[in-house]
Amino acid sequence: MSATILDGRKTRDERVPELAKRVSALSSTPTLAIIQAGNRDDSNSYINAKKAFGKKIGVNVKHIQVLETVPQSELISIVQECNADVTIQGIIVQLPLPIEIDDDAVIDSILPSKDVDALTAHSVKRWLDGNEDALLPATARGIRTLLKSYKIDLFGKKVAVIGRSTLVGKPVIAMCLNENATVTVCHSKTQDLAKETKVADVVICVAGKPGLIQKKNVKKGQVIIDVGINTLVGEKLDDEIETKKLVGDVDFEAVNKVVAAITPVPGGVGPMTVLSLFENLMDLCEKK
Amino acid sequence: MSATILDGRKTRDERVPELAKRVSALSSTPTLAIIQAGNRDDSNSYINAKKAFGKKIGVNVKHIQVLETVPQSELISIVQECNADVTIQGIIVQLPLPIEIDDDAVIDSILPSKDVDALTAHSVKRWLDGNEDALLPATARGIRTLLKSYKIDLFGKKVAVIGRSTLVGKPVIAMCLNENATVTVCHSKTQDLAKETKVADVVICVAGKPGLIQKKNVKKGQVIIDVGINTLVGEKLDDEIETKKLVGDVDFEAVNKVVAAITPVPGGVGPMTVLSLFENLMDLCEKK
Repeated sequence: MSATILDGRKTRDERVPELAKRVSALSSTPTLAIIQAGNRDDSNSYINAKKAFGKKIGVNVKHIQVLETVPQSELISIVQECNADVTIQGIIVQLPLPIEIDDDAVIDSILPSKDVDALTAHSVKRWLDGNEDALLPATARGIRTLLKSYKIDLFGKKVAVIGRSTLVGKPVIAMCLNENATVTVCHSKTQDLAKETKVADVVICVAGKPGLIQKKNVKKGQVIIDVGINTLVGEKLDDEIETKKLVGDVDFEAVNKVVAAITPVPGGVGPMTVLSLFENLMDLCEKK
Repeated sequence: MSATILDGRKTRDERVPELAKRVSALSSTPTLAIIQAGNRDDSNSYINAKKAFGKKIGVNVKHIQVLETVPQSELISIVQECNADVTIQGIIVQLPLPIEIDDDAVIDSILPSKDVDALTAHSVKRWLDGNEDALLPATARGIRTLLKSYKIDLFGKKVAVIGRSTLVGKPVIAMCLNENATVTVCHSKTQDLAKETKVADVVICVAGKPGLIQKKNVKKGQVIIDVGINTLVGEKLDDEIETKKLVGDVDFEAVNKVVAAITPVPGGVGPMTVLSLFENLMDLCEKK
């Protein structure tokens, strides 16, 4: 028997009409500014996904791209211009930034009222606190929405979160605690990962390690949320074009046969993250 | 057989000479400002403990007490005066504040370089991130110091933290993760607390509920850290004077006979918290 597929594309698509309606109810077209330093392939593809989704729901996405060699002070100036620009309602600083740049200094220069990624210190304190008005970073919000749309309630459940990164792991941990789950945080120093994951009702994997969650890590009845997005480079074809494959942290084929529900990669958490980013933007617009 | 007592008073006293040396090495006597709105008994006793410890190590503690009816704007003005005062190196806003006041607005007005409690948004983001230079809130730092002084390493250990408050629970969770423990966060909605605590190597209880951790919650070999400070009112004596007793969250008499090591209340985490606050202050002074 196969697990229920927690279909992020379907859930996203179901929510698009409502979101588009919220956009059109505003007095003017909202604008999301995305500031990018450099030209990384992964950043480009995330930005393209945001542009495409913005177009679909009637949000203007303004892509401000500067060279990788941009001085930190100039990046902060660009953020401040966006802060001051009344036509811009949300600001994203696309991560990762070049290694010489202090991420916190740039991100924390975003005005809280335009902090659509919820990664400024002001926002972090509020979502960590479980403040009801606080925006959640998009991935954590997307997981929450996906679970709710499949009527999976975290209240009192045991959740194993694998990963503790600031950008994704920590917001997911906070979200689960705010939903009243008992949360076990696992990571690379966890002694016996399978032991931790097997006793959980829900496993959320944010590790970025393909194949980390195997059949031995799971049991019947569980819900598996795979947040990993890993690009595997396949064999070279005769014409020397490399094949690339997107995989999560979970061995989908093996785990799928055991558990009750699972997100695919692609098509699970990814589409929910883009949706949630624009839901965050609408929350900011409507607060004004 | 009884457990090893993790003696916070002894550990604190051992560290006092080094701390006093750090104070006397500064070019001038440092000042810690404590801003109190109102006159709560518990706040008064915490402030008195800080004053006494400050005196012991040569730190000037400036207690600024205003009425409980103080407007929020005035409290923020007081913080800003302390920010601007070059003779003040650390600022504490004594919590809890009167209910009408927005804690975050007042606390976040503290200059990061004087944020000795590490509760401003700026600091929260940094300790959550595991930033090496970040100050930890005093209780979390105190627990870490106490464990290290008894050579108890959290690396790879299973830790159950009971409690998820912003002021104490969350910093303790972050500290344990930064020390590379696998952390399970339990709370009032946890279905089977004993099941969670019994599989842990270290149990840290931050719940504020006397008697929460009983013999059935623990097993041989564990380390128990009791962060609860609860005042039990005892029987009235003939002369109508009520007896008060300070207890933690752990049934010490019962648990003590089972586990490997345990903190007493009083005399465990409490003294370490006061010590750690002044260690934070010295870190701030020496950074300048």
